[in-house]
Amino acid sequence: MPRHDGRTPTQTRPIKFTRWFTVHAPGSVLVEFGRTKVLCTCMYEDAVPPWLRAANFKKPEDQREGWLTAEYGMLPGSTHTRKSRDKGGKVDGRGVEIQRLIGRAVRAIIDTKLIGERTLWLDCDVLQADGGTRCASVTGAYVALWDCLLRMKDEGKLKYWPLIDSVAAVSVGIVDGQAVLDLDYEEDFKAETDMNVVMTGKGRFVEVQGTAEEHSFPREQLNQLIDLATQGISEIAALQHAILNA
Amino acid sequence: MPRHDGRTPTQTRPIKFTRWFTVHAPGSVLVEFGRTKVLCTCMYEDAVPPWLRAANFKKPEDQREGWLTAEYGMLPGSTHTRKSRDKGGKVDGRGVEIQRLIGRAVRAIIDTKLIGERTLWLDCDVLQADGGTRCASVTGAYVALWDCLLRMKDEGKLKYWPLIDSVAAVSVGIVDGQAVLDLDYEEDFKAETDMNVVMTGKGRFVEVQGTAEEHSFPREQLNQLIDLATQGISEIAALQHAILNA
Amino acid sequence: MPRHDGRTPTQTRPIKFTRWFTVHAPGSVLVEFGRTKVLCTCMYEDAVPPWLRAANFKKPEDQREGWLTAEYGMLPGSTHTRKSRDKGGKVDGRGVEIQRLIGRAVRAIIDTKLIGERTLWLDCDVLQADGGTRCASVTGAYVALWDCLLRMKDEGKLKYWPLIDSVAAVSVGIVDGQAVLDLDYEEDFKAETDMNVVMTGKGRFVEVQGTAEEHSFPREQLNQLIDLATQGISEIAALQHAILNA
Amino acid sequence: MPRHDGRTPTQTRPIKFTRWFTVHAPGSVLVEFGRTKVLCTCMYEDAVPPWLRAANFKKPEDQREGWLTAEYGMLPGSTHTRKSRDKGGKVDGRGVEIQRLIGRAVRAIIDTKLIGERTLWLDCDVLQADGGTRCASVTGAYVALWDCLLRMKDEGKLKYWPLIDSVAAVSVGIVDGQAVLDLDYEEDFKAETDMNVVMTGKGRFVEVQGTAEEHSFPREQLNQLIDLATQGISEIAALQHAILNA
Amino acid sequence: MPRHDGRTPTQTRPIKFTRWFTVHAPGSVLVEFGRTKVLCTCMYEDAVPPWLRAANFKKPEDQREGWLTAEYGMLPGSTHTRKSRDKGGKVDGRGVEIQRLIGRAVRAIIDTKLIGERTLWLDCDVLQADGGTRCASVTGAYVALWDCLLRMKDEGKLKYWPLIDSVAAVSVGIVDGQAVLDLDYEEDFKAETDMNVVMTGKGRFVEVQGTAEEHSFPREQLNQLIDLATQGISEIAALQHAILNA
Amino acid sequence: MPRHDGRTPTQTRPIKFTRWFTVHAPGSVLVEFGRTKVLCTCMYEDAVPPWLRAANFKKPEDQREGWLTAEYGMLPGSTHTRKSRDKGGKVDGRGVEIQRLIGRAVRAIIDTKLIGERTLWLDCDVLQADGGTRCASVTGAYVALWDCLLRMKDEGKLKYWPLIDSVAAVSVGIVDGQAVLDLDYEEDFKAETDMNVVMTGKGRFVEVQGTAEEHSFPREQLNQLIDLATQGISEIAALQHAILNA
Repeated sequence: MPRHDGRTPTQTRPIKFTRWFTVHAPGSVLVEFGRTKVLCTCMYEDAVPPWLRAANFKKPEDQREGWLTAEYGMLPGSTHTRKSRDKGGKVDGRGVEIQRLIGRAVRAIIDTKLIGERTLWLDCDVLQADGGTRCASVTGAYVALWDCLLRMKDEGKLKYWPLIDSVAAVSVGIVDGQAVLDLDYEEDFKAETDMNVVMTGKGRFVEVQGTAEEHSFPREQLNQLIDLATQGISEIAALQHAILNA
Repeated sequence: MPRHDGRTPTQTRPIKFTRWFTVHAPGSVLVEFGRTKVLCTCMYEDAVPPWLRAANFKKPEDQREGWLTAEYGMLPGSTHTRKSRDKGGKVDGRGVEIQRLIGRAVRAIIDTKLIGERTLWLDCDVLQADGGTRCASVTGAYVALWDCLLRMKDEGKLKYWPLIDSVAAVSVGIVDGQAVLDLDYEEDFKAETDMNVVMTGKGRFVEVQGTAEEHSFPREQLNQLIDLATQGISEIAALQHAILNA
Repeated sequence: MPRHDGRTPTQTRPIKFTRWFTVHAPGSVLVEFGRTKVLCTCMYEDAVPPWLRAANFKKPEDQREGWLTAEYGMLPGSTHTRKSRDKGGKVDGRGVEIQRLIGRAVRAIIDTKLIGERTLWLDCDVLQADGGTRCASVTGAYVALWDCLLRMKDEGKLKYWPLIDSVAAVSVGIVDGQAVLDLDYEEDFKAETDMNVVMTGKGRFVEVQGTAEEHSFPREQLNQLIDLATQGISEIAALQHAILNA
Repeated sequence: MPRHDGRTPTQTRPIKFTRWFTVHAPGSVLVEFGRTKVLCTCMYEDAVPPWLRAANFKKPEDQREGWLTAEYGMLPGSTHTRKSRDKGGKVDGRGVEIQRLIGRAVRAIIDTKLIGERTLWLDCDVLQADGGTRCASVTGAYVALWDCLLRMKDEGKLKYWPLIDSVAAVSVGIVDGQAVLDLDYEEDFKAETDMNVVMTGKGRFVEVQGTAEEHSFPREQLNQLIDLATQGISEIAALQHAILNA
Repeated sequence: MPRHDGRTPTQTRPIKFTRWFTVHAPGSVLVEFGRTKVLCTCMYEDAVPPWLRAANFKKPEDQREGWLTAEYGMLPGSTHTRKSRDKGGKVDGRGVEIQRLIGRAVRAIIDTKLIGERTLWLDCDVLQADGGTRCASVTGAYVALWDCLLRMKDEGKLKYWPLIDSVAAVSVGIVDGQAVLDLDYEEDFKAETDMNVVMTGKGRFVEVQGTAEEHSFPREQLNQLIDLATQGISEIAALQHAILNA
Repeated sequence: MPRHDGRTPTQTRPIKFTRWFTVHAPGSVLVEFGRTKVLCTCMYEDAVPPWLRAANFKKPEDQREGWLTAEYGMLPGSTHTRKSRDKGGKVDGRGVEIQRLIGRAVRAIIDTKLIGERTLWLDCDVLQADGGTRCASVTGAYVALWDCLLRMKDEGKLKYWPLIDSVAAVSVGIVDGQAVLDLDYEEDFKAETDMNVVMTGKGRFVEVQGTAEEHSFPREQLNQLIDLATQGISEIAALQHAILNA
């Protein structure tokens, strides 16, 4: 059965990276998964939070460590009905969950001991949402991070390249009884099961998050979805490598 | 290799339920996974949030729906170093993540159309933390929910029993290169990979959350961990059934 | 004396509008004043705040009124040093001031009695900041508002066109003793006096905000700056008309 | 006239202490006044707030001082109708009042100059509320504090025992025209006058808080209530001494 | 022993009321206890909070009830070292305690069933602090309340006069071993024991709050302080009556 | 056409300063513009925020700089309908705007390099509002600042007098088609255009803020309003000089 936008079940939407989308952040990329558009920027600061500062703990110089943190936001006009900035003091639980996911995903492929006592700030802001914003964010964050590290290297701030691997993410789900790759908003809305998978370029898992939207699901489906995600991420990782000439 | 507390890799800690631990909430259970102790209470209210009220949307009476929400907290003295109540306005990201997980887990096994226009409040408060508090919370929440529904039934508030299945959770992880079941704090701290699995009593998946703590992990490990979780949850589900005579 | 970027004192930076920059908001324009880039979106909602609802005050139907509100934000990566999202509970005074200015500017050229009981939401989010973001926001907001109203008209929601005039804004200031138009960040930083002027397409004033950065200024300078702003806005208004075919 | 639960006017409810109720906090006691159950924990930290640090004020070493702070909370399921965690930004005035009372009560019987530059954290969390939670909290806090200090002594952190006296609290009130001791929720609700009295084991006053719930009261009643409280606290103090072998 | 300002132990400071200190609030009085100056205003609103509205509970018209609420603040310049407005999100525990006291004090002498479905707002703002601000607040609040009710009566909004008695407050304490009345800041600072007493004009108690600042105190002192407060309040009540011609 | 209170268009309301209105703040003045009454206090602190501390930046001693900050508030009873203290977490946008204006106004006439590493705190609290509170605040703030600096000079804390000029503010507007000076609340409410002008005693501009309330306005009106403000401020500046003997 063809999907509502003509894709086969195993096809991602067109994926596009626009590097250097803005000029102030050393890493800045607009990543598009179909109509989903996320601006990912990466900036660094020559300081770490107090609880990491080697000086505070009398650690020798060679045990200095860096820090990486990620934040996620949606512009008010990015969704069908306006997303209010002001939650009246309430926590945006979904947003918190997503930014923690992005942080963990990226920390899995960087050796923060190699960036010195510096903080890397990753910001993923959704300009237009059409499903899969968290996966697009992880995927774009890697590209922005790469460009920020490149700048740091050019400025002589890195002795060793701190990236161990690349990282990307994709969603998979069961829609109308069929396992499909990279769901858009319409599919996401209808999905019985929804899974976000984060993997490295070398094909290892970083994060697997599967959720039964209303109905629980059997082991066969879990396996099938993971197979599909594995294939999708290997394609996305190739696109990342191509854009970065890496 | 035996585990630090003498368990085999496939053994859970002693799991214990104390029903009716407090008297005001219709459902109240103290659940213990070894030294982890969580007080789960379930209360109901004869009202739903405004955006669900049938009257507000001119829905016919038989389309009335209920609501279920979960909250998670830790007492300040529940951890090794005191957990501050006051986050100075900052969001407790981890707590938000956990309470959303509990809510999704329980909503997967209840038909909220069968509880009328009522809200079910689940509160999971950790009295003593020793690893696995989110899994203990999901597992105890089910028992508290059952007892609360029982009370509602006794009071003539339920026409049909709204539970479709039971639900429980357990953690699995790779510690010292070995897949182990139901990690305590010491193991959790050392784990290379950490996964929380929520399943129904019938053996279907509700939520799978695997995270590489520092190193990504291969497909074989993912499969192995899911096998182990499946076994563990089937044992925990049996305990739940026994305590509830269900 | 030529300006640092080669402009004459009375030249604005290149000004560019990209209409329909995103797809969900009925009005969505990327406005650029040189390197300053602001995404302005306009959405409408079929409701007003409770204190405006005619029904609450037993007003006759023909006294129904609409509402328009504006918000302003900067993405964390939009500035040289990262702009923190989290103000730790502190108010972003500058942001509050700017969004109030945008709201007043736009309310001056619309008759909200002609939009029915609806709320118009204007969101101005800075993607890249290089001076003059509030003026670019006002200028882009007008274009986004126009497109949103056009959509409402197409959907039969407007009996009469509610816009009375157009509106635009520009900054002027004294830099190195010279009155200059449309300051960029570098000039803004050095300016002795800084003025933001909001005017309608018909050349009438909506808002005049002049501030001595460190030194007070004499009446002649005030007059000179207002002359310069008047000229600048008449050019910007022409660009707005051109892009809208209005 | 017998009381609704069969007690005489001068009888307290059964009072029970369960020491070492949880394992992480050096002091941890579950105190019960009838159906009122409060978990009191006491932890210490080897630091004081900046404004107390001797080093910041160039004080000699022997003028170092410690700090003691108390917090009070109620679990959502501890009351008849669920107590919301989220006050929507509003202050829980009653809770603030109570935790300040606990702090003052305990500070009256400890010499904080004898604990070094350390902070003692007392947390009183109500698991089940049935009237008198603040008095149970003060009474249990003393026991938890004792156990925490004992641990500190064992660890060689105390040169001198810093406690000067013991402390306990009880409520008294006029119910149906009769002065009664240790009101439960039902009596508290009906009380015309309500008084909380905090006294030391040696029979001296620390805090007297009397409130006319609706009607003011004459001096004779004040005296009568204080007599009754004095008797009640002397009994409670004896129980504290017994449990602590002190 | 004479007091530092020449008063005898049983003398209050000069007490002064300036009625109609401001013009918008129907009740507005500047109350001075020596150098302590508090502006007390009382305003009314023709509405009550939702949980009191008779209509919401289908109560008959004659069971309508009013509401009274009090707030307390200190101007930043009112104290020796500036009192920050911004507590960085932290609760001002002392302020909360005081405003709750003022509310209870005044509610004890008014029959809110006689004011219709209205809210009375009492605001006590300290312009200059020199000890005893909470007692001055209670004392002035009564005068402001009286004037507000007078206005309501003149406007035909009261069928019956709702005040049952008058109310006033004074502090007493042990300073240098001597019981003294109406402590100023310097005495308050040195006091061993500190007590705030709220009484009605008829000599009945509304609130008794005694606190051992560092040392606990014996029963004799408690009695002595209450005797002194009783005398002081009878004088203050006379002043209130005189100013109000009541 | 005479104004509703009998003034000519070019007359201010009676302006009055009561110096040393309270005793703790070194500068404390009650400023009255007719029925508008604002208490302005100025206090100093021997410290600056961390980002200004010379020591933190290894600046030489002679580059130490001071800081000046202003805050604005309204007492709840200062307005016709009570102004709530509690905005439920919402920002009081108008208040933020005003306190930023006061800060900029005063910073324009002081050389903060001459006050050492100190912070000057200006607090403007409205006791009674009848239009023009922000202008009265600026005008009174200058007087409070002068008195605070005088105290600092007496205490030997100033080598040089840091004030460069005086500063005052007044509102002007178009009411019933006529340009009028110093609008009261009733006029402010009806004004078509409203402008606040801040000028120094020497007749130079510090801030010009003109707003079309509903209709935009032409250049002639702008000029006319500025002329009127210039005249008004020269009179107010003379009053300031007189009261200060400066």
